[in-house]
Amino acid sequence: MFSPAINRFLDACLDEDIGRGDLTSAVLRGRRGSAYLIAKQSGVLCGALLAQRIFQRLDSGIKARLLVAEGSQLVEGQRFLELEGPATALVAGERTALNLVMRLSGIATATAALVAVLEGTGVKLADTRKTSPGLRVFEKYAFQCGGGVNHRLGLDDAAMLKENHLAWVGVDIEDALKAVRNSAPWPIRVIVEAETFEQAQEAVKAGADGVLLDEIAPTDLKILVPKLRKLAKIQNNSVKSGQVVLEASGVDVRDLSAYAATGIDMISTSVPVTRSPWLDMSMRFDLSE
Amino acid sequence: MFSPAINRFLDACLDEDIGRGDLTSAVLRGRRGSAYLIAKQSGVLCGALLAQRIFQRLDSGIKARLLVAEGSQLVEGQRFLELEGPATALVAGERTALNLVMRLSGIATATAALVAVLEGTGVKLADTRKTSPGLRVFEKYAFQCGGGVNHRLGLDDAAMLKENHLAWVGVDIEDALKAVRNSAPWPIRVIVEAETFEQAQEAVKAGADGVLLDEIAPTDLKILVPKLRKLAKIQNNSVKSGQVVLEASGVDVRDLSAYAATGIDMISTSVPVTRSPWLDMSMRFDLSE
Amino acid sequence: MFSPAINRFLDACLDEDIGRGDLTSAVLRGRRGSAYLIAKQSGVLCGALLAQRIFQRLDSGIKARLLVAEGSQLVEGQRFLELEGPATALVAGERTALNLVMRLSGIATATAALVAVLEGTGVKLADTRKTSPGLRVFEKYAFQCGGGVNHRLGLDDAAMLKENHLAWVGVDIEDALKAVRNSAPWPIRVIVEAETFEQAQEAVKAGADGVLLDEIAPTDLKILVPKLRKLAKIQNNSVKSGQVVLEASGVDVRDLSAYAATGIDMISTSVPVTRSPWLDMSMRFDLSE
Amino acid sequence: MFSPAINRFLDACLDEDIGRGDLTSAVLRGRRGSAYLIAKQSGVLCGALLAQRIFQRLDSGIKARLLVAEGSQLVEGQRFLELEGPATALVAGERTALNLVMRLSGIATATAALVAVLEGTGVKLADTRKTSPGLRVFEKYAFQCGGGVNHRLGLDDAAMLKENHLAWVGVDIEDALKAVRNSAPWPIRVIVEAETFEQAQEAVKAGADGVLLDEIAPTDLKILVPKLRKLAKIQNNSVKSGQVVLEASGVDVRDLSAYAATGIDMISTSVPVTRSPWLDMSMRFDLSE
Amino acid sequence: MFSPAINRFLDACLDEDIGRGDLTSAVLRGRRGSAYLIAKQSGVLCGALLAQRIFQRLDSGIKARLLVAEGSQLVEGQRFLELEGPATALVAGERTALNLVMRLSGIATATAALVAVLEGTGVKLADTRKTSPGLRVFEKYAFQCGGGVNHRLGLDDAAMLKENHLAWVGVDIEDALKAVRNSAPWPIRVIVEAETFEQAQEAVKAGADGVLLDEIAPTDLKILVPKLRKLAKIQNNSVKSGQVVLEASGVDVRDLSAYAATGIDMISTSVPVTRSPWLDMSMRFDLSE
Amino acid sequence: MFSPAINRFLDACLDEDIGRGDLTSAVLRGRRGSAYLIAKQSGVLCGALLAQRIFQRLDSGIKARLLVAEGSQLVEGQRFLELEGPATALVAGERTALNLVMRLSGIATATAALVAVLEGTGVKLADTRKTSPGLRVFEKYAFQCGGGVNHRLGLDDAAMLKENHLAWVGVDIEDALKAVRNSAPWPIRVIVEAETFEQAQEAVKAGADGVLLDEIAPTDLKILVPKLRKLAKIQNNSVKSGQVVLEASGVDVRDLSAYAATGIDMISTSVPVTRSPWLDMSMRFDLSE
Repeated sequence: MFSPAINRFLDACLDEDIGRGDLTSAVLRGRRGSAYLIAKQSGVLCGALLAQRIFQRLDSGIKARLLVAEGSQLVEGQRFLELEGPATALVAGERTALNLVMRLSGIATATAALVAVLEGTGVKLADTRKTSPGLRVFEKYAFQCGGGVNHRLGLDDAAMLKENHLAWVGVDIEDALKAVRNSAPWPIRVIVEAETFEQAQEAVKAGADGVLLDEIAPTDLKILVPKLRKLAKIQNNSVKSGQVVLEASGVDVRDLSAYAATGIDMISTSVPVTRSPWLDMSMRFDLSE
Repeated sequence: MFSPAINRFLDACLDEDIGRGDLTSAVLRGRRGSAYLIAKQSGVLCGALLAQRIFQRLDSGIKARLLVAEGSQLVEGQRFLELEGPATALVAGERTALNLVMRLSGIATATAALVAVLEGTGVKLADTRKTSPGLRVFEKYAFQCGGGVNHRLGLDDAAMLKENHLAWVGVDIEDALKAVRNSAPWPIRVIVEAETFEQAQEAVKAGADGVLLDEIAPTDLKILVPKLRKLAKIQNNSVKSGQVVLEASGVDVRDLSAYAATGIDMISTSVPVTRSPWLDMSMRFDLSE
Repeated sequence: MFSPAINRFLDACLDEDIGRGDLTSAVLRGRRGSAYLIAKQSGVLCGALLAQRIFQRLDSGIKARLLVAEGSQLVEGQRFLELEGPATALVAGERTALNLVMRLSGIATATAALVAVLEGTGVKLADTRKTSPGLRVFEKYAFQCGGGVNHRLGLDDAAMLKENHLAWVGVDIEDALKAVRNSAPWPIRVIVEAETFEQAQEAVKAGADGVLLDEIAPTDLKILVPKLRKLAKIQNNSVKSGQVVLEASGVDVRDLSAYAATGIDMISTSVPVTRSPWLDMSMRFDLSE
Repeated sequence: MFSPAINRFLDACLDEDIGRGDLTSAVLRGRRGSAYLIAKQSGVLCGALLAQRIFQRLDSGIKARLLVAEGSQLVEGQRFLELEGPATALVAGERTALNLVMRLSGIATATAALVAVLEGTGVKLADTRKTSPGLRVFEKYAFQCGGGVNHRLGLDDAAMLKENHLAWVGVDIEDALKAVRNSAPWPIRVIVEAETFEQAQEAVKAGADGVLLDEIAPTDLKILVPKLRKLAKIQNNSVKSGQVVLEASGVDVRDLSAYAATGIDMISTSVPVTRSPWLDMSMRFDLSE
Repeated sequence: MFSPAINRFLDACLDEDIGRGDLTSAVLRGRRGSAYLIAKQSGVLCGALLAQRIFQRLDSGIKARLLVAEGSQLVEGQRFLELEGPATALVAGERTALNLVMRLSGIATATAALVAVLEGTGVKLADTRKTSPGLRVFEKYAFQCGGGVNHRLGLDDAAMLKENHLAWVGVDIEDALKAVRNSAPWPIRVIVEAETFEQAQEAVKAGADGVLLDEIAPTDLKILVPKLRKLAKIQNNSVKSGQVVLEASGVDVRDLSAYAATGIDMISTSVPVTRSPWLDMSMRFDLSE
Repeated sequence: MFSPAINRFLDACLDEDIGRGDLTSAVLRGRRGSAYLIAKQSGVLCGALLAQRIFQRLDSGIKARLLVAEGSQLVEGQRFLELEGPATALVAGERTALNLVMRLSGIATATAALVAVLEGTGVKLADTRKTSPGLRVFEKYAFQCGGGVNHRLGLDDAAMLKENHLAWVGVDIEDALKAVRNSAPWPIRVIVEAETFEQAQEAVKAGADGVLLDEIAPTDLKILVPKLRKLAKIQNNSVKSGQVVLEASGVDVRDLSAYAATGIDMISTSVPVTRSPWLDMSMRFDLSE
């Protein structure tokens, strides 16, 4: 199901490339053709559903058939989307569709590689709000396609008290947490970012739903995590929020295993979004038809 | 000068993050503060002008002062944008502004590294249409900030005949080129993508404004380029378009120097856009105020 | 802080009333004037901040001063917003501004009346997704101004498994809950709507973050609630989500006190949104100036 | 016929509820189902055509069949819209569709109740510009579905000189009326709001197309109306506009009959829009399929 | 007062010309300058207010001063708008501002020439709905600036029964007129287009607010008009709408005087919109600064 | 192929006319009908494809069949578009569709008349950026339908150094040209506007891609053009851009033949856009069905 907002976004992407019109398509007017999208390297497919819709937004007469399910592992040379329709529309949608599916598959592939490291540990990999402006929902979707877990999608589906919030207002964590809970919708979870043992403990005592332990070494976390769990258990009887989710951030991804061994619930990282290459793909035109 | 379209885009980026409202800002209501953006690693600054405007779109009362010019080399720890205004707006704009300036500075930095390789050769580095959907003008701007040259921005500011155009219509390059010139605005250049010696020569004979030599090895290019130059000189008297721009694409960036030595005019690459990490930056809040 | 989305919404409201231009304003061209908004009956003020912004969107030269804080109790005849500027703009913004502030103050006032009934019980009043299309964030804001607590704002900031979800897929609550948790961002709470004792117990056992007890009589709830609490305590050691929020819905507001006495955490109701009259207000023009 | 503007509005309503995606629909992916909308209390149906279109905007594959004509009287339990399609889309459109049809049917039902009081009197019931921001055309349509007559829809389809226009410019009614007529399109009617006998008479003499008699008691109106009719007849020979429409406003709806007996043409009221409860309805999912 | 819709329209016009950025402005970066708009031929000024706003939308730092009131007669060489600000913005707004003010002043000038022919006859010149798509309100405003009277601005501010409406439904004028009045807002006037004596008479009898006499020769109109006036007087006692406005359309503008002598109230024509040349103007840059 | 931007534009045109709804269509509800568009005078057809799409945007159930290809010569009375569908939609789209096709066919017809004058001379007729705001791509398309060649479509698909650019920055043509080339995408052509022999020569020497010779008499051009050609030939060996396009502007269209005889490549004119009448057309309703 595509929300109207997603349709509008795909339209805007097409308009960005087409501008005042595809000048080269003059030679193709009136022709029909077929084509397919193909992976030029192996990786996790993500965004093929969007690529399919991009062509259909351009011309509702285009037939577009998905050959591989979103989130599947692609091998080099594998076709994943077949197209048939007016040649001008196929050519005009090519770059926009490829750009989106290559970008998202790149993120999904990079995420899957990190998730593989955590396999069997029970620790989850979460993303962040570091995403390309305008592409938040899509890049988060790619992270999920790669086996990761989404963190909040915006400033409005979870609250997170950070260093700067606390420093600026000059209140302690408990008061800040109460202030946020009082104005947020009740199902909203409130997370506290902690940079020290003391802050982390204060956050758990105050009943935070999650504590984000930022830039704390695995060796230190190993000591801190059990303390926080114990504290949470004690709090559990008197404070509303129940068990706390402990999350490590500011993590060098080469140390994932070390972090996973600390007893943490989750490791959040922007790496698959901010440092992954696109997955190479191309669109081939079928001359036999 | 910001076109209305750019203002609307920045608004959309803010709305993407803020959604139905910043839930955490409850603790900051009524406070004012100051902050600055800072580089956490060295690189080329790009997008600070946009970051500045993002905050001003959110609240016209925010004072935002650029400390470093766009395109400058930043050193680790360097501040480049100072802000002062309502705390809620500073916090609400933080992620959106950082995401844009980090992404664009990452591209500019990666571009600059490749441009440095070409220094003194007279060969230019050009970008492609492989850009994140919705961010075309910004990512192209970043490529330019890094010292690269922009290729066409869309399907409407230059024409490019590709393999598939030619194959589909079954006409030769000369006829296709004429068809495009007949319908395009006269100042539009027409480029032909060639994958073989024969295609390249045919394109030059037909008076193409540029020939994109795709996936041809440097050793082969060294032979081909002078031939095409000679051909172009002969054509020059009879054909309208004059001298042809020769461009290599499908290049492994580790071979940049070898390509530069072939006599080519330009090397186009998507690498700084599709494979570069974001430049690390952050926003610090000034507690002294 | 107004997000760009809110500014655009206020613009759309103005355009809805002004259409192709205010025909009557011909007589006012070139005049300046002052005016104020006034309550014609007592109630809770909500939306004056939006009314202020409406006038400023129409003409940035309008001075608009709030005299009363949002959420305050207004007495009949009390002025709450003073305006000064071009007469044509004051008149053109009048109806749009009044419609918004009257509607929202009506909701806030009705909410406050119900919240008063619950005072001292510790039970909270929550709203629903039954809101006027297009006005969701504003009507939810009004509910909060009246002392209520917001429930989820949309389909994306909390999950709620309803009868129909379960019936259609033919899985039990536990499996459905897992499926939702697996794809939702981790901070998202999952609520289960229960219409029977069995469903409610199954939901708690499955680790739901909240159980919405729909159309269950207070006398029955009094028996059910302690059982669910006990069950939750047992679950607490083995299931991630911790304590469960118990919410009654489908409540006749005349029975609020009876429901509050059942030990429930929260009562959700659409009544202040779907059944409240607007608060009567008007805009007066100051002839002395 | 739906104008593009209406389609865009319905899209915006869907996006408001769906936000970044329906989190609960994960359990329904790939399923199809059927459902129907049903009245939970009797009243006048209004907005079912819009509800039908809402589902079709979300997924063009949804089959939606209206069982009852707009404006019909519904009995409790009556089905009025049948749906069949992908389960995720049916569930995602449910709340938006219901909110619109419940709100509009509430207005239509409340209007019909007042119109019934006027039956046989020849006096019409008109609405006002007091409508929920963003919903003007829909709420006015509901008023009409309930048997009422629409007053002007905005500031641009009729002109109305109010107290404040006259006071501010310091001209008499005749001059103001001329000024408006001179700049308005010729088919535009000009109405004058009168709060006293003198103003009403002046308005008629000046050739107003309508006089809105605001907050004048029925007993006074009974004297005033015939005088104005007589005056209008005299004017009829010399002034362009012809017969004047006399309208009472500021009316307590409990006094409708008394007002109807004054000889007035029309009574305008915002009550069905600003004070009516939503008509209770729900969407049921058909498990047998 | 500019409605938000007008601001958005001006933004769209700027974006249409600027596209992905003004390529030539590279040479002007950082410079400030002054300029003025000037008439290169005499005519009626219209749209200078919009030109002023266009520059201000592009850069709020531009100072723009109107030297001549809208609707004034300009002489060749006369300056009407002075500008001062960043050179890049002045140059980027030039073409858009000129295109609008030249087009509108062309219409105003052509309208004024026809209105001059009717001077002293008491007959008004009205426009039509034949306007450039997207420019309706502006071209109608220009018609008014030239001394003309606006006819309805769209399908929603007056109703007009045309030949095709009547033929298709197979009802007589009286029934059709009633049907329209029953569903239209009460202040809406209903006009009937008549192509024969019989239709015109039927329309008057049925109480039409206006009759549009299409393609009827002046000699025939001279006979018809008095008959219709007489008929209208008789109708006046029994029918609601009062006096009828008689309008000639399908008029060759060379015959304006002959039509004016028929006793008609109004002549409607699309000529100033569909056949007028733009008024020549240009923007000059002041080198002394 | 229609880009999403074009669909949105056509929607906006429909909304402009329909506004809050077509009041007259009440009489047509539920009827179906057929109709056709017809030329009332001979000329070149342009915009019928857009007219067809306009009806389909309003109601996807309308069948619309083009009878004549875009750019064809129409004779008086010729039908070019057949329609069948709901009567309300046919009537609601009528004016918008006609306005667009009449305006564009008027431009195409006027262009064709001028192009005919140049026939056999090898000189091309180019348009300008003087186009109705909002209609740029459509009016340029009409110019091409009439046999003309499009000049740049905006400020971003070619660069043009004008008098004011040069004067303001105080640099010579060569430096300005370099500055523009350095920041523009490489395929962008740079044109220089010259008002004197000296400027023209300097432009050619500097390697301009085109020189626009503004308001230079044919007798002078006859001397200047060969000089510039010779200069270009010399430059050809050392400067990148190759042969220069020489274009005359500021031309009185009565002198087209004289200009064509000067050896110029192209004559640019805004006359078909700024001075052409609309081509008369109408929509007829087929009563037999």
